[in-house]
Amino acid sequence: MIRLLFIGDVYGKPGRRVLTAHLPGVRDQFDFVIANAENAAGGFGLNTESAKALFKAGVDCITLGNHTWGNREVFAWLDDERVLRPINYPLGTAGKGFSTFEVKGERLTVVNAMGRVFMEALDDPFAVMNTLLEREDLGSIFLDFHAEATSEKAAMGYFLDGRVAAVVGTHTHIATADARILPKGTGYQTDAGMTGPLESVIGADPEGPIGRFLLRTPHRYVVAESRAQLNGVVLEVENNRTLRIARYEYTEPH
Amino acid sequence: MIRLLFIGDVYGKPGRRVLTAHLPGVRDQFDFVIANAENAAGGFGLNTESAKALFKAGVDCITLGNHTWGNREVFAWLDDERVLRPINYPLGTAGKGFSTFEVKGERLTVVNAMGRVFMEALDDPFAVMNTLLEREDLGSIFLDFHAEATSEKAAMGYFLDGRVAAVVGTHTHIATADARILPKGTGYQTDAGMTGPLESVIGADPEGPIGRFLLRTPHRYVVAESRAQLNGVVLEVENNRTLRIARYEYTEPH
Amino acid sequence: MIRLLFIGDVYGKPGRRVLTAHLPGVRDQFDFVIANAENAAGGFGLNTESAKALFKAGVDCITLGNHTWGNREVFAWLDDERVLRPINYPLGTAGKGFSTFEVKGERLTVVNAMGRVFMEALDDPFAVMNTLLEREDLGSIFLDFHAEATSEKAAMGYFLDGRVAAVVGTHTHIATADARILPKGTGYQTDAGMTGPLESVIGADPEGPIGRFLLRTPHRYVVAESRAQLNGVVLEVENNRTLRIARYEYTEPH
Amino acid sequence: MIRLLFIGDVYGKPGRRVLTAHLPGVRDQFDFVIANAENAAGGFGLNTESAKALFKAGVDCITLGNHTWGNREVFAWLDDERVLRPINYPLGTAGKGFSTFEVKGERLTVVNAMGRVFMEALDDPFAVMNTLLEREDLGSIFLDFHAEATSEKAAMGYFLDGRVAAVVGTHTHIATADARILPKGTGYQTDAGMTGPLESVIGADPEGPIGRFLLRTPHRYVVAESRAQLNGVVLEVENNRTLRIARYEYTEPH
Ligand SMILES: [Fe+2]
Ligand SMILES: [Fe+2]
Ligand SMILES: [Fe+2]
Ligand SMILES: [Fe+2]
Ligand SMILES: [Fe+2]
Ligand SMILES: [Fe+2]
Ligand SMILES: [Fe+2]
Ligand SMILES: [Fe+2]
Repeated sequence: MIRLLFIGDVYGKPGRRVLTAHLPGVRDQFDFVIANAENAAGGFGLNTESAKALFKAGVDCITLGNHTWGNREVFAWLDDERVLRPINYPLGTAGKGFSTFEVKGERLTVVNAMGRVFMEALDDPFAVMNTLLEREDLGSIFLDFHAEATSEKAAMGYFLDGRVAAVVGTHTHIATADARILPKGTGYQTDAGMTGPLESVIGADPEGPIGRFLLRTPHRYVVAESRAQLNGVVLEVENNRTLRIARYEYTEPH
Repeated sequence: MIRLLFIGDVYGKPGRRVLTAHLPGVRDQFDFVIANAENAAGGFGLNTESAKALFKAGVDCITLGNHTWGNREVFAWLDDERVLRPINYPLGTAGKGFSTFEVKGERLTVVNAMGRVFMEALDDPFAVMNTLLEREDLGSIFLDFHAEATSEKAAMGYFLDGRVAAVVGTHTHIATADARILPKGTGYQTDAGMTGPLESVIGADPEGPIGRFLLRTPHRYVVAESRAQLNGVVLEVENNRTLRIARYEYTEPH
Repeated sequence: MIRLLFIGDVYGKPGRRVLTAHLPGVRDQFDFVIANAENAAGGFGLNTESAKALFKAGVDCITLGNHTWGNREVFAWLDDERVLRPINYPLGTAGKGFSTFEVKGERLTVVNAMGRVFMEALDDPFAVMNTLLEREDLGSIFLDFHAEATSEKAAMGYFLDGRVAAVVGTHTHIATADARILPKGTGYQTDAGMTGPLESVIGADPEGPIGRFLLRTPHRYVVAESRAQLNGVVLEVENNRTLRIARYEYTEPH
Repeated sequence: MIRLLFIGDVYGKPGRRVLTAHLPGVRDQFDFVIANAENAAGGFGLNTESAKALFKAGVDCITLGNHTWGNREVFAWLDDERVLRPINYPLGTAGKGFSTFEVKGERLTVVNAMGRVFMEALDDPFAVMNTLLEREDLGSIFLDFHAEATSEKAAMGYFLDGRVAAVVGTHTHIATADARILPKGTGYQTDAGMTGPLESVIGADPEGPIGRFLLRTPHRYVVAESRAQLNGVVLEVENNRTLRIARYEYTEPH
């Protein structure tokens, strides 16, 4: 049995701050830690400073999303076995979408995929998952499904139910309250939520987004400054199924 | 102080079943009950049978959303003081978007509005709320903000913080785990979730949506048959602020 | 040299009327006639009556688009060598996306593909065309690229320039005035336009769409009744290049 | 009778080059010249250099679009009576959406509006036009309707037919071949096309957009270098109706 912690989209300095302060103290409760870091570098992408900070704090694997290309320093990391971008980018894209790790003598494959509803027209994530699952020796499979629409995320959950250990969503930056085990044993939560400033519009100071919604002209978005919250999901995984799944939340004190 | 129960999108027969079975037994714990019923009639809109069933079970006010027009019988209900469609439909649209009730000697105004990100281009919900709030005698204001994007919902929360009692989202059919009181006293939760079949893709049997995602050709969507879950939010409201907010969830037993 | 006539989206009865009345009289000026018929059956899809009428009037090959599935009778025609649906529907979809014909002793391959910008998330049409072009014996290739955005259509034109005989767009229902031969010899026109009622909103009586834009509630769309216009493109094709390309337009008299 | 020339989206240096070289020589054939210049400054917005060059070459009025805010220098021009941004930006937006000119003793009102289908959620352009048309003394009205979808543009044409002199579309950068007078006397063309590099993907060198479509990662877009084409529409306007409308096209020689 592998005890996994999956940490939702790490957003800017507040996200890195709460993660690097909190994770080391609880790291030994988990066998493996995955973090979505598509917003780690000031809200846009992954840079070297952020990658190093996350790995140092105890993260074992980094996943990304639509903001993969937001910071050019990501190209120095896309060949690292521990860094994944969505698997359904077209053939010829830098980086890779899955990686298999050895954890406590068991195999654990982490996959990152991206949805298409209200998002970029990548390759079909359902078809790509079908192809991936033809491989052997993947062990237990954890999918970070970075997607906007709840319908696409839930459909992916049932599509993979009984075929992977877990499907957990990211991208909306708001944790959902639906952690559960699907009928055939796959752990599922629609969205892990964000690891970043609590008082914010999905990470940004509300002033920018509100101005944008009201006036429809460009407004500067800045990372919100408030106490931060770490949002994640804890899973106990065995034989490519989930035995237990629960939300994990830590908020910086006032 | 008004004790409010807000019930998320009631979906088809399973949604009506769990609501009508559960609500009467707990109705006296609340002073006022609001239910979003845009999916009450087989997933699409509101019909007379559903409206009557909900009111009989103890619902005091019905809100709707993008599925308002899904069933023609809704037109028989749009003049009812207890039935609201999104307020930001253009001038000339049947129905109304807010209604003021007398609850325990206090005024309570319920508003229904719809977001525009990834949705229909209605009038600007932010501007419409500004206009509405110029009125006097609205008392405490509860907004059901029916929207897709977490950014638009969070922006509305902060936009109205300190100006309304509560902003609770609907439409995604998945409850979010972020119920809280914003800095200036407004209760907020990004999405109340759905009241409908638990094992489903936002209400539908997974087979239809999965087929649609895989093949991109039309597939029949049917209401999922599984035990149902009621998802809601409980709020204690006073002087146009929220004193307490918490998720409310009831699942039919196996 | 093959003299081709490509006829833009045939829309409802007015479209069939102008095509069946006009085409037989000019049919002998062309070696091969292709018609996009995705709107032939009352605006939505292809039915048996329409297919038979078009073939009888002199059409040699029918292409489709996003409305392929609008009429169930299409399934009786998808195995016909002369009927194509967009090639980039996922594997497993009924029908096929290209067909090779023998015309005056030369090979002519007609392809139908669909864009993704502002449309359904099909497989990548650029990648699919790359794969198709690895085949031998396709002869001269004509692509009906059914797409919304001018950027995607123009990009496809340059992407295939020198590799296919012609790329002509459909779907917007408005003919563009940019017929020309691209630098490497591929004939190109952004959109062939519609074959249907002239006084209409892309085929429909204006009352429906105007009501819809003003009120955002459902409005009935009916096929406009007005004199019809046939919109097409004439091409002279040889050795997988275009020697001449020009718009073709015929309008019913008052 | 006013003889109008409307020039489609001026794109970057090639667009300014063909306009400033060609317009002065034909300027005396027209009473008034309007140019959409939303892409004048390197493809994005309007800067001082571009504005001055256009006015000097004989342009009387500049309209904009979704790229209005692409260059900060535009703010120096938004108070100029000759510079218009889309009228349906929300209240409080800098600039204005219409301006009335005195031409040969007659009044001519130029309006700029933006569509919402596949675009930013501005205020409803149909409702805003209704409001504008309640004003008196507008004289003959010319609308540059900057919109993506042919359905929205055609609907606007019929909506305003008999109420304005002309509705001409912009934004797609490809001229349409449908210039005509609608049943009640309003001149109409779905899109005026672009004034910019002919061999391009709506202005950009094809390499950038093709790379973007193939790989879905960011690609640098550069203004295409090729001979340029001026696309426009000529109209003869009287008493708020159009007497004659025709496409106007000039291409730089090889
Ligand atoms: Fe994110
Ligand atoms: Fe994301
Ligand atoms: Fe709903
Ligand atoms: Fe909804
Ligand atoms: Fe069509
Ligand atoms: Fe189409
Ligand atoms: Fe433009
Ligand atoms: Fe534009």
